Amino acid sequence: MTLIEDLETPAVLVDLDVLERNIARQAERARAAGVKLRPHGKTHKTPEIGRMQLTAGASGLTLAKTGEAEVFADSGFDDLFLAYPIVGADKAKRLLALSDRIRLRVGADSVEGAATLSPAFGAAGRRLGVLLKIDTGLHRVGVAPERALETALRIAELPGIELAGIFTHAGHAYRQETPEGIEAVARSEGEILVAAAEVLRREGLAISELSVGSTPTAAHAMKVVGVTECRPGNYVFHDLSQVSLGACALSDCALTILATVVSVAVPGHAVLDAGSKTLSTDPLRPRASGHGLVQGGASRLSSLSEEHGVVEIGPGESFRVGQRVRVVPNHACVVTNLHDRIHAVRGGRVEAVWKVAARGRVD
Amino acid sequence: MTLIEDLETPAVLVDLDVLERNIARQAERARAAGVKLRPHGKTHKTPEIGRMQLTAGASGLTLAKTGEAEVFADSGFDDLFLAYPIVGADKAKRLLALSDRIRLRVGADSVEGAATLSPAFGAAGRRLGVLLKIDTGLHRVGVAPERALETALRIAELPGIELAGIFTHAGHAYRQETPEGIEAVARSEGEILVAAAEVLRREGLAISELSVGSTPTAAHAMKVVGVTECRPGNYVFHDLSQVSLGACALSDCALTILATVVSVAVPGHAVLDAGSKTLSTDPLRPRASGHGLVQGGASRLSSLSEEHGVVEIGPGESFRVGQRVRVVPNHACVVTNLHDRIHAVRGGRVEAVWKVAARGRVD
Repeated sequence: MTLIEDLETPAVLVDLDVLERNIARQAERARAAGVKLRPHGKTHKTPEIGRMQLTAGASGLTLAKTGEAEVFADSGFDDLFLAYPIVGADKAKRLLALSDRIRLRVGADSVEGAATLSPAFGAAGRRLGVLLKIDTGLHRVGVAPERALETALRIAELPGIELAGIFTHAGHAYRQETPEGIEAVARSEGEILVAAAEVLRREGLAISELSVGSTPTAAHAMKVVGVTECRPGNYVFHDLSQVSLGACALSDCALTILATVVSVAVPGHAVLDAGSKTLSTDPLRPRASGHGLVQGGASRLSSLSEEHGVVEIGPGESFRVGQRVRVVPNHACVVTNLHDRIHAVRGGRVEAVWKVAARGRVD
Repeated sequence: MTLIEDLETPAVLVDLDVLERNIARQAERARAAGVKLRPHGKTHKTPEIGRMQLTAGASGLTLAKTGEAEVFADSGFDDLFLAYPIVGADKAKRLLALSDRIRLRVGADSVEGAATLSPAFGAAGRRLGVLLKIDTGLHRVGVAPERALETALRIAELPGIELAGIFTHAGHAYRQETPEGIEAVARSEGEILVAAAEVLRREGLAISELSVGSTPTAAHAMKVVGVTECRPGNYVFHDLSQVSLGACALSDCALTILATVVSVAVPGHAVLDAGSKTLSTDPLRPRASGHGLVQGGASRLSSLSEEHGVVEIGPGESFRVGQRVRVVPNHACVVTNLHDRIHAVRGGRVEAVWKVAARGRVD
């Protein structure tokens, strides 16, 4: 069996003990709240991890792009929701083919977008399940709550489309700097959705799914009465941003980057062989500050170039050329998107090497 | 033949007319200056493009990581320089195998680092060509000029190592906000290297290679008398940062992202299906400002999440759901690292689809 110390660097490690604990905890939380858990697979993009989530009780997976759904369908996943406004006749064709073999739903936030999917399903005498996205404060995509009814009614009339519910993503939780701020965002996320569903139902629309959730807001949002489904993603791995947001402890971070110190030539710095091509330049949330933490100490990565991670050496710490370290990244989801493989480790050993099968499937 | 309009989005496009012009211009510049051109392949990671550079007169390619060299060696490239402090006995083994089939040199900035490569080559009765990295002001890696002699003498004594030259990378040019600032960095880059070589030669070291260069500094640095080689990379594609730095015109940007507008639900914004998983979050240089420009207009991407590119709609412009646009990215090198394929286009047609063969080879 391969040992961690035998791996070439840089390499992505996932600690199985932590991963299993994260998966079990979120599943238990959803069970206790009485909502379905549909984890967002964008964080791992790895069928083996998705399977662990289903085994723990998830009802299916969430993904964003059609290409990701194709990869997971090929791996035997039969219930997927694309929480994204899918647009285009070319995508519709692929969604129709996917619908032949799995239960598939997608997001929409405009009549025009849904209308690009309608003809393919209509012509085939089929109906694509669509959830209307409601903007609950992030102001990225999604219709404003006061415009939800008008849009929902028109989408529901499109041939080949079944309006099955509404969903939201309260990504503005990542801008909150206090637990109270996050809790407030999470509650309003659920409450706005429940209120919007009431309006739509009063007009005769059959809104059966009310889907919310992100890792920082999940615990609160899933408790709002009327919410039926929760879609956190990052919780499988967690990362330094989740620690900063108070959504987890540092010991809950399952994903690290194994790296080697390649230079200490510049005083006060140690340079790792892991840069932005390994860690990405995604900022720390909620406040930008560095590019990762060297595990087991206080030294942080202060800047990245493509193949260099510059560590600002913490007080009382030292590094030597050739030394290996593990880095907790700012944002785990974008790290997996950079790598072909994840090493599943436990107690110094590599138990499995998983292919990040849906990596790069941005279409 | 596939037309651009038939491609699924998001997709990476490279305009062949612009690519060919960029390659020819840099080759002509090096010829005129009388230096070897060894382009950094990290920008494209694509053997087909590396071959175009060789055909135009490049003496070989520069890369950073051992894994990239393995990919290019497999594709028939026989003269590579890894401009990176390679460290580790595991890497030494792979470098030795590479040296069996190609002319290979690597960088070093410490005796300790070079000492990890020495035993494998020494035991095989072979010598690995090493260039000592000199810090000419970036303060990332590289020995300070005043410490170059001491380090060079000790590296040169290592069994299995041949100290063949010195090199630098004046990445601090990317912080300069005026053409004069860039020119000053470029000149000092060359001049510091020439002065360091003189000191080393006086002590009997055979310093034959003096290697400099980046896309913004190349034109000036290659003209410093004594410099033998130049290693710009980004110039094959250019990007919005090079435009901001004055290193090229917008019309010199060969790489764009084809994307689809998926939402206009939030007033003032259009949202593209290309986010940080397509464009990366790398900031604009020298001053951070947005995440790319919609080609042919004034609208810029103001924020990115993984699958969403939020366009701040410019004055007098408008977007509709389903519309396709092309985005000029902040940093082209990290874009290719996110994608498996590049579409080589000319006049609306896709002439070739190239595999980004060395993508993700960070080890």
